[in-house]
Order: sequence, then structure tokens, then C-alpha cells
Amino acid sequence: MIEIERKFLVTSLDFITEKSNSYTIKQGFLNTHPERTVRVRIKDKSAFLTIKGKPNASHRSRFEWEKQITITEAENLLKLCERGVIDKTRYEVQSGSHTFEIDVFEGDNKGLTIAEVELSEENETFLKPDWLGEEVTGDTKYYNSQLSKTPFNTWIND
Amino acid sequence: MIEIERKFLVTSLDFITEKSNSYTIKQGFLNTHPERTVRVRIKDKSAFLTIKGKPNASHRSRFEWEKQITITEAENLLKLCERGVIDKTRYEVQSGSHTFEIDVFEGDNKGLTIAEVELSEENETFLKPDWLGEEVTGDTKYYNSQLSKTPFNTWIND
Repeated sequence: MIEIERKFLVTSLDFITEKSNSYTIKQGFLNTHPERTVRVRIKDKSAFLTIKGKPNASHRSRFEWEKQITITEAENLLKLCERGVIDKTRYEVQSGSHTFEIDVFEGDNKGLTIAEVELSEENETFLKPDWLGEEVTGDTKYYNSQLSKTPFNTWIND
Repeated sequence: MIEIERKFLVTSLDFITEKSNSYTIKQGFLNTHPERTVRVRIKDKSAFLTIKGKPNASHRSRFEWEKQITITEAENLLKLCERGVIDKTRYEVQSGSHTFEIDVFEGDNKGLTIAEVELSEENETFLKPDWLGEEVTGDTKYYNSQLSKTPFNTWIND
């Protein structure tokens, strides 16, 4: 399938409310090449292997293939992954008819919070909540595959 | 699981008999890093995604994970693969209690024929057929992941 999404920084943690749905994610990459990433993810009590292609010209759309695997398979495959496993907590927050997936990173990426919204077409409009900051769609340093190699705590503030 | 196998060159095509079982294989790699190869393979009318870890010190044993996928999924994933898709015909030949898998390569690897035997333990013995040549277990240039990048027709004879 083709995945269409846009990505934003998050300016406050105000999106977290009592009714927020959240779960933990641990993930690693067997391949962080921008043309073909291969990701192993444990998401709460499920696990997935996900292969993504190169983003298109607008950086909003890319081929994605995903298969559920067992937790044990994922744990074995995580051992093979490149250095830099990512730990984060994901919140799902409704905004109008869309759901934002907001990742609060831990470990070497602590301090970074990123929101993604999945769209059915590239130019679809959506409600922008107050806590939504600068758009970073297509900025490769915010790709999880890059955050695993060059985490947030190594960035130099300019 | 752990895969234990040894690999040999093949000195003649005498292993091909009327009763030889054979099928075609087309495969590509999403990752050719020696510590974590990710292979997409169409084998006759089935398709598989296979992830292999780094070989151990003897080069005879390595972690292997495999999942069947559909032919359509494999065709989509082959489009993402690194350049250098491998085409070959595989023969299965019985030798005593073991089965040799013999790959006769086509395309850029034409002229190369490699036999592999899978063992249940590293030092298990097996019958060596007449057509079995030099052992190349652990010689990385014969790895399919390397043949896809540096095919046989680019080797300089020394």
C-alpha cells in the first residue's frame, strides 16, 4: 500500500489528557537506507516487520508493507538490528475526523516529541490543534531510521 | 532458528539427471550488510522474505528467519531491492542421507554453479559426490548477497 502522512513538531504536552490512549513502542532497523527501510517493532503486546520505500517528491507518500510477527520473533530480530534501538510512548489523539499519532521519545531521543497524521490523499485538510508546531515532513533527520543512528541528544542547537 | 550449511563449487553438470527436481529462483536484497541480510525470493510459485544474521566463527552457522509472503508482495518488494536481482535454477540432488541444493546461476552470474548442503550439526559428515569441487564456505564473494552487487562476470580471473 501507499502511506500518506505529514509530520510536525509538538510544542507542549497539553495533548495528554485523562482519556488519552497510549502504548509503548520499541523498534530497531535492519536497514536504514532511505530507499528501503526495514523496521522491527514491538508495539504494546504485538510485533510487526515493516518495509518502507523511498518517499515521493513531496515527501508525504511512500510504499509501505507490513506483516505481523510474534514478540519472540521480534526480540530475535531486534538483536540483529543496527545499533540504536528506539524507545517511545505513542499517544493517539483525535482532532476532528483525524487521529494524530504523537511519539514522546525516551533514551537518546528524550526531549523530542513528534506528531504524525495519516491522510487519505496528499492535499487533504485537517484540524490543527494548538499544540501542533512546525511541520517537519520530509526532513530526514526526524525519520525514525535516522534518529536511531543520530539521536536527538547528539544534535547541536543552532 | 540457526542454519548450518557448507558450500562448494561444482565441477560439472553431471548431477543433472532425468529425475532431477528443479525450479527457478529470482531474488533480490533489501539489505546486503553481512550482519543482517534481508532477502526477497520468488521460488517457483511461492515467495519468501528471509532475514539472516552474521555467520559464526566457522562460517557454517547463522541465525535465519523466514516468512512466506504472496507473489504479489514479493514482486512489489523486489522493486525496492538494491540493484542486481539474481536469477538461478536450483536442483535438489540426493547424496546418501543428505540433499544438495545446487544453484546454476543465470544473467550476470552465468557460469557459476554452487552446491550447498544443510547439516544438523557443524561437524556432521556427508557423502561427497564426484562433481563436488572446492569448498567455499565462508568465502564472502560467493554469498548471494555479494553476487548481487559484484556478479561473477565482473570477477578477474587470476
